[in-house]
Amino acid sequence: MMKKIFVLLLGVSVSASSFSQDVKKDSAVMKQISNHILTNYQCYNDLRYLCKHIGHRISGSPQAEQAVAWGKETLDKIGCDRVFLQEVMVPHWVRGEEEASVIVKGKKSGIHIASLGNAVGTGEQGITAKLLRINNIDELKRMSPDDVKGKIVFFNFRFDQTNINTFESYGPCVYYRWGAPSEASKMGAIGVVIRSVSSAYDNKPHTGTLTYNKEYPSIPAVAISNLDADQLEQTMNAKKEVSMYIRTTCQMLADVKSHNVVAEIKGTENPDEIIVFGGHLDSWDIGEGAHDDGAGVVQAIEVLRVFKELGIRPKRTLRAVLFMNEENGLRGGKKYAELAEENHEKHILAIESDAGGATPYGFSMEMDKDKRDAIKSWASLFMPYNVWSFDREGGGADIGPLKRKFGTPIMELMPDSQRYFDMHHSDNDIFENIQRRELSLGAITMSQMVYLVSMHGL
Amino acid sequence: MMKKIFVLLLGVSVSASSFSQDVKKDSAVMKQISNHILTNYQCYNDLRYLCKHIGHRISGSPQAEQAVAWGKETLDKIGCDRVFLQEVMVPHWVRGEEEASVIVKGKKSGIHIASLGNAVGTGEQGITAKLLRINNIDELKRMSPDDVKGKIVFFNFRFDQTNINTFESYGPCVYYRWGAPSEASKMGAIGVVIRSVSSAYDNKPHTGTLTYNKEYPSIPAVAISNLDADQLEQTMNAKKEVSMYIRTTCQMLADVKSHNVVAEIKGTENPDEIIVFGGHLDSWDIGEGAHDDGAGVVQAIEVLRVFKELGIRPKRTLRAVLFMNEENGLRGGKKYAELAEENHEKHILAIESDAGGATPYGFSMEMDKDKRDAIKSWASLFMPYNVWSFDREGGGADIGPLKRKFGTPIMELMPDSQRYFDMHHSDNDIFENIQRRELSLGAITMSQMVYLVSMHGL
Repeated sequence: MMKKIFVLLLGVSVSASSFSQDVKKDSAVMKQISNHILTNYQCYNDLRYLCKHIGHRISGSPQAEQAVAWGKETLDKIGCDRVFLQEVMVPHWVRGEEEASVIVKGKKSGIHIASLGNAVGTGEQGITAKLLRINNIDELKRMSPDDVKGKIVFFNFRFDQTNINTFESYGPCVYYRWGAPSEASKMGAIGVVIRSVSSAYDNKPHTGTLTYNKEYPSIPAVAISNLDADQLEQTMNAKKEVSMYIRTTCQMLADVKSHNVVAEIKGTENPDEIIVFGGHLDSWDIGEGAHDDGAGVVQAIEVLRVFKELGIRPKRTLRAVLFMNEENGLRGGKKYAELAEENHEKHILAIESDAGGATPYGFSMEMDKDKRDAIKSWASLFMPYNVWSFDREGGGADIGPLKRKFGTPIMELMPDSQRYFDMHHSDNDIFENIQRRELSLGAITMSQMVYLVSMHGL
Repeated sequence: MMKKIFVLLLGVSVSASSFSQDVKKDSAVMKQISNHILTNYQCYNDLRYLCKHIGHRISGSPQAEQAVAWGKETLDKIGCDRVFLQEVMVPHWVRGEEEASVIVKGKKSGIHIASLGNAVGTGEQGITAKLLRINNIDELKRMSPDDVKGKIVFFNFRFDQTNINTFESYGPCVYYRWGAPSEASKMGAIGVVIRSVSSAYDNKPHTGTLTYNKEYPSIPAVAISNLDADQLEQTMNAKKEVSMYIRTTCQMLADVKSHNVVAEIKGTENPDEIIVFGGHLDSWDIGEGAHDDGAGVVQAIEVLRVFKELGIRPKRTLRAVLFMNEENGLRGGKKYAELAEENHEKHILAIESDAGGATPYGFSMEMDKDKRDAIKSWASLFMPYNVWSFDREGGGADIGPLKRKFGTPIMELMPDSQRYFDMHHSDNDIFENIQRRELSLGAITMSQMVYLVSMHGL
């Protein structure tokens, strides 16, 4: 006989009979929401339109403006109490042309690159320099500036495949994209190449934003795919001297006027208590922004739609926000919080969906323990949907400003993360890599959580 | 404030200190298993070979025999204590040619069909008859044989999209594939067309086995895709008379000699207690049998490999079985149980992986409560891997005969089921639709469960 080591108790009922009635009703409405979304797939059709008719939509681009118009029109059709735009100035970075090659003993071999977002270009002539491989930031910091000066630094930091939740691997790895380029510049480097921040082993480079430390010169920075990085690593192991040629014409243009799209259903009993939920409308300028974050956008729209189509009247006000410029500025999220302050609005909860369109299994949260416990008291209601995880820390980027300004409780939908970083910020983030039922389950889980908070408060 | 309705208690420790040591060790080995598999992906590479170099492999086909040879060779390389083949005679059904068209007012439109497995053909001339739409079996049973006689019955039963676990939708729907054709024959029908047993809305028909009731004539039976079924439904709504022409040359040939592939690592303390785990080596003759059941095959192989590569010495004997002929006969599963009886073997647990290669979240089980409780006492050890569900009923087809013959406790790995029936038994079940990390997590969960039982017994 095996030893009994731990016990696991699930769904121990401590309900009084008046609560039982509530539970029965809540459970029935949650099932109604699920059946409705699983049989009409409107969010999937919305996503097809966003990805296939508009496509990728970086802030400041004509496609971003088409997405704003589409978002407003789609929300208008639902019959919300109010749909409006919030003006926000956004950065306008353009990729331009890009080409690169690895040079060994005078022989050039082309390599596929993607400039990091917000990066400067190399100028029309491009740059050519010796490549210096750096496996982690400490290695760079221990070097003498003489050894770095004039070189292109290749940050060869790998995505840790051993984490079950791949977001835990993203954290350490993404530093080499957003922060490390300026560290290389500080040491005298003239350019940076990074191993893509991705779990994929394929030939697609993954872009994403960098932030220059203005104390040092802004230098060009590009990503290469994991397979190309492996190859480059092998080449550098075998050869004494490897150089690289990089030409990028990316540049930051003047700010452009854009918008958050906001839609509301007024609460019947506590209309001043707002539950906000959303995703971001902008995407990177490669792929189609299907998982990042078309999924979150169409799920937020679906929450309002299911309330309207099922005739559910929320006691508190529901507000969907399609945020602009999450990727390379967060201007939409900041603007939303500023306007909330100006308008003296009271947000009781903010939920973001910005972790992809796969099957959800829980919510991460940043809030006081009593509020987290209140949400966890509903856990058994989510069990029939295989949604069980309510213990992780985490909110969302766009709703962070609400948390920082007002202490608003925030949470983020957690979909299974196995595939997300295979596609994230790359040519692979396309509609075909979204599955109908998985996307819909995300919309269902969001709608159910919004329903419970709209009825019982937080 | 919200009402506290249920409480959820996870991982309440009731451990004594000697148990704590065990838990720490078990937990460490489970993490070692996880890290090893997540960083080498050998099961993913095995699956690539099986799908891309061998391909689909229906029982009796040359590819099935190649798969047997590949399975044995792959297991031989691992350095198990024993690798052997179990001879088994299997059915040999061949698809041949197939064509069909829908006929409205003399106008023929081609439609893509897939014969159901084990079905008879139409003869070279094909059959042409009026189409009778039947939405569910009761509708058929209420009809007069005069209304059915000489017709082709179109079973238009839909896959229920509202279940979160899609296997719950498969059950009711699959009857129209395996049992309903003979009911139509009983009423005088000369052929059957079914709506594919699938969650997908695309143009791929899904095959799968049927079983003729020998009291009635065996009639041809084919599947059409869900999109084509929708179209056919609309045509039949609009037109009084719709006919169909079907020509299939499928046939059942004489039985062929084939094999189960078996590999073993002997237990150090209780070698007579066998833990068996496996998937099935045969597949349907369309697609590549990637999810069904290449995934299960390579996961079973991986369990033995990880024990060998990490030098884990199990106290009880581990046995991987790559079963032959799950799809259209179950001869391998039956033969395995017969030989176990002849050899007086004692199986303490049988685990099957035959529900696809997606992210796992638990095991279904068929066993006595005390054994289920013993397994559930390990639940907290699986939580870091997002594996939490141990309450569902269910085993696997290939290990069913062990259960029926000896009462062996059986269980099946439960992967997320959202995508499975989009691909199952169709052209879409190919290697490209398997994700490396997801497949590996299945191998990890299986290995961890096998590890715990091998050390603590059941």
